[in-house]
Amino acid sequence: MTTYWLERAWTGAGPVQDGLLVEVQGGVFTRVAAGSAEGAERLAGLTIPGLANCHSHAFHRALRGRTQRERGTFWTWREQMYDVASRLTPDSYFELARATYREMVTTGITSVGEFHYLHHDPAGRPYDDPNAMSHALVAAAGEAGIRIALLDTCYLSSGIGSPPQGVQLRFSDGDAESWAARVEAAQLGPDVRLGAAIHSVRAVPREQMWHVTGWAEQHQAPLHVHLSEQVAENDACRAAYGATPAEVLEDAGALGPRTSAVHATHLSGPDIELLGASGTSACFCPTTERDLGDGIGPSRRLHDAGAPLTLGSDSHAVVDLFEEMRAVELDERLASQQRGHWTAAELLVASTCAGHRSLGFGNVGRIEVGAAADLVTLDTGSVRTAGTGADECTAVFAASGTDVVSVIRDGAVVAGRDDRRAAGADLDRVVRSLWER
Amino acid sequence: MTTYWLERAWTGAGPVQDGLLVEVQGGVFTRVAAGSAEGAERLAGLTIPGLANCHSHAFHRALRGRTQRERGTFWTWREQMYDVASRLTPDSYFELARATYREMVTTGITSVGEFHYLHHDPAGRPYDDPNAMSHALVAAAGEAGIRIALLDTCYLSSGIGSPPQGVQLRFSDGDAESWAARVEAAQLGPDVRLGAAIHSVRAVPREQMWHVTGWAEQHQAPLHVHLSEQVAENDACRAAYGATPAEVLEDAGALGPRTSAVHATHLSGPDIELLGASGTSACFCPTTERDLGDGIGPSRRLHDAGAPLTLGSDSHAVVDLFEEMRAVELDERLASQQRGHWTAAELLVASTCAGHRSLGFGNVGRIEVGAAADLVTLDTGSVRTAGTGADECTAVFAASGTDVVSVIRDGAVVAGRDDRRAAGADLDRVVRSLWER
Repeated sequence: MTTYWLERAWTGAGPVQDGLLVEVQGGVFTRVAAGSAEGAERLAGLTIPGLANCHSHAFHRALRGRTQRERGTFWTWREQMYDVASRLTPDSYFELARATYREMVTTGITSVGEFHYLHHDPAGRPYDDPNAMSHALVAAAGEAGIRIALLDTCYLSSGIGSPPQGVQLRFSDGDAESWAARVEAAQLGPDVRLGAAIHSVRAVPREQMWHVTGWAEQHQAPLHVHLSEQVAENDACRAAYGATPAEVLEDAGALGPRTSAVHATHLSGPDIELLGASGTSACFCPTTERDLGDGIGPSRRLHDAGAPLTLGSDSHAVVDLFEEMRAVELDERLASQQRGHWTAAELLVASTCAGHRSLGFGNVGRIEVGAAADLVTLDTGSVRTAGTGADECTAVFAASGTDVVSVIRDGAVVAGRDDRRAAGADLDRVVRSLWER
Repeated sequence: MTTYWLERAWTGAGPVQDGLLVEVQGGVFTRVAAGSAEGAERLAGLTIPGLANCHSHAFHRALRGRTQRERGTFWTWREQMYDVASRLTPDSYFELARATYREMVTTGITSVGEFHYLHHDPAGRPYDDPNAMSHALVAAAGEAGIRIALLDTCYLSSGIGSPPQGVQLRFSDGDAESWAARVEAAQLGPDVRLGAAIHSVRAVPREQMWHVTGWAEQHQAPLHVHLSEQVAENDACRAAYGATPAEVLEDAGALGPRTSAVHATHLSGPDIELLGASGTSACFCPTTERDLGDGIGPSRRLHDAGAPLTLGSDSHAVVDLFEEMRAVELDERLASQQRGHWTAAELLVASTCAGHRSLGFGNVGRIEVGAAADLVTLDTGSVRTAGTGADECTAVFAASGTDVVSVIRDGAVVAGRDDRRAAGADLDRVVRSLWER
């Protein structure tokens, strides 16, 4: 048993507390109560539950800073992203993902939802182990110390009615039945949450979606899907199906409390009602949505309709869930010229327990008896956080990932302040070697 | 003479260079050329010129994280800002400004434009030294190691035609002639650039503006003014004067190449033409404009019309000019759903030489012979910057203030990586004591 004394703590329920004593056994909290520091390991600063990064494409980390040279759109950016995708092998994917996940862990992220679609070799042939790329990601997460939900993604078409082209051959299993057979055969180990993803209404024909939703239903697994990130997707979907992407997903039985709609940027009023009434989570990725010029989605209206908010760093232009939290609120302010759409506590819920729940980790994201013992501690006296009150607003409106001084996952220390330097060196080596290849 | 070898450098002209040797004598660069590291002090990473923070209200730093608890507008936020303003004395203002400026220096800011309107005691009476508050700011800058342009601000009315109320009494000199007389008497020392500011069209009656513009003209001094940050200001101005704020300033002779229009958010097409044709700088403060829900100003259209872009951290919700740089571009992307409005080099120009010029520091902001020897060095191997190419895009799209590892101003080291901790402790002490008062 280990006992920690938290100088200040936001547990997931109620306001920040002073002097909380928590006991950990077997990776879970066995006691949480006010108490003195004597005999306990002290965590000075503000401690919050572990953060959940609900939408990651690990390999996009290699693009940071490298796609900014030209004017363009989401679609020209995608060409550069495909360039990286074309270079990866199981070995280099493992290295890049490990380095990316290490960056995440140093910023307080204890769980990642990896939206994984790079399945096959460059010719589109399965590797000898058809899940070799999934295994690379799982091994990377293990070495980095991050909990992973592997969201194995079905990607079959370049656009509605268009076969996969170029690097997209690496994404496609041919049809959704073959996708399901490959996923069913995956042996990823007991620590991994295996989930499903429909890449988008562009990439999975409507009539094949039921293989994916069926697999997820059978396994009671998380189901993620990119939704209405771009106006062009909405236009193509309406032209092909006479319905919005949200309506197509609803018809396919893809919405519901195990489902996360990623981005959910360009929605109609009825779309918002569909997502809310079904209890589908809305996974916003604000720094990527800024970077790609997606636009500002209706986060608050979705929440008020019944769709829980979760957060992801997606393309990893930035890996910092503190920045994602405040970006949700700040972008709503830009759109509305009003402040105070989201409270800091609501945004913390999005990045902790709501996020973990959307990845299938129902017992993670709160500091309470029986929950997984994840503890993320922030320095409240840095140049960024000093003087801000050491409360929820400090975490959401002042802190950055670099203020994280200690990260504990399932009761074990997975990162401290001094691990950032090594993580940076690892990233530098891996990304350079990828581009020099 | 000191010689530095810069591993990578962006000098302000042309692309990033490898291996630049710079000699410094008497605080200015005396030689800048490619060369080897032998015998020189090595600055590993990416070095850029000093950053100019062109719009600061130092005391707003005490508000960080503390104004986020309620729904509200710019105008309700202002009530909390006035609460801080009402607490300050010359001594506590000195301490708070010193701590705030230290935070700035650690993030690579070598010059600050302090938009200063807190002139008098709480009853509105001049202190024994009528420029006591100005002296507090100048002393704070001196101890923090930052170069200061003191933009002494004329603030006479609560709104157009309304006398100052409450804490606004501290801001007002009664009339603009008295403002000019007080400023004329200020003895701030040879290192300080004294400039003028018209708080806004709300706070200085149109018929009195000429005292301020005249003083600035006489001294060839910078002239700054808040412009069209809020729609309400535009509405009040049109109702009172039948003209937009930009038109009122143009009529008053307040626009021109020594002038900076701060925010410039809600402009008409003709407003943009007025600012551009006059060569007025547009000082954007994107993180504050997000925080206050101001909206997204037409930065690129202003630039293309002839108005140079500069940047400020304003309310200090964030002090990080790297974040301000990318926020200009990212917010344009949100508004337009297109990428690539600004190149990274253009944004670096805004935060370095264009910014310094707008503060009256014409020889600062480039690494070239004859310029002030300001050098800001970024770690290109941190978790944020690793793998991003160590070029202009690294600085603008990946780095944060915490990646600054060395800051040299006028040839002297003013901050290193290890000074951030002390700066944080100072801020913590000073801000706490202010709120506990």
